[in-house]
Amino acid sequence: MSDLTIIANIQVKRDKLDLVKAELQKLIPITRAEKGCLQYDLHQDNDDPCHFVFVENWTSRALWQDHMQAPHLAAFIAATEGTIENMIINEMTLV
Amino acid sequence: MSDLTIIANIQVKRDKLDLVKAELQKLIPITRAEKGCLQYDLHQDNDDPCHFVFVENWTSRALWQDHMQAPHLAAFIAATEGTIENMIINEMTLV
Repeated sequence: MSDLTIIANIQVKRDKLDLVKAELQKLIPITRAEKGCLQYDLHQDNDDPCHFVFVENWTSRALWQDHMQAPHLAAFIAATEGTIENMIINEMTLV
Repeated sequence: MSDLTIIANIQVKRDKLDLVKAELQKLIPITRAEKGCLQYDLHQDNDDPCHFVFVENWTSRALWQDHMQAPHLAAFIAATEGTIENMIINEMTLV
């Protein structure tokens, strides 16, 4: 059962699209293998290829926080420095 | 298999929260029963109770469009007139 749903909106700089999309895709298998990860799906906007949304579900906030501290997140952040215009992470609960 | 993911962000006027939340919840069972609906999950923001996100998956855009023309959508729109500050509907594809 999901205790926490994360909706993460990521707006990428147009000239960095390919790089960031590849780095985002790298996160998927390794994150889905993490403890507490129930769902980790990446979506690309049909009307704006530079807009991505992660839909995530986690069994607890604590395990999501562990994910946010994981080495592969740090590697993503380092690899995508200066390429992301905006990132909004919403912590949500299924109604 | 989902052909279309819908991420719908809904920002509700604070004084209309209870009314709109009830109307949003009414949409869930009837929409999940619609042809082509694979997922229709409503989420409320843990940091802003006036912010809701629908995560939807549909087997085709055409069937999603049928949903958008359905009587229960028209009833929702009528019942919530003037209560919604902002609604952004993104059509997305699973990467």
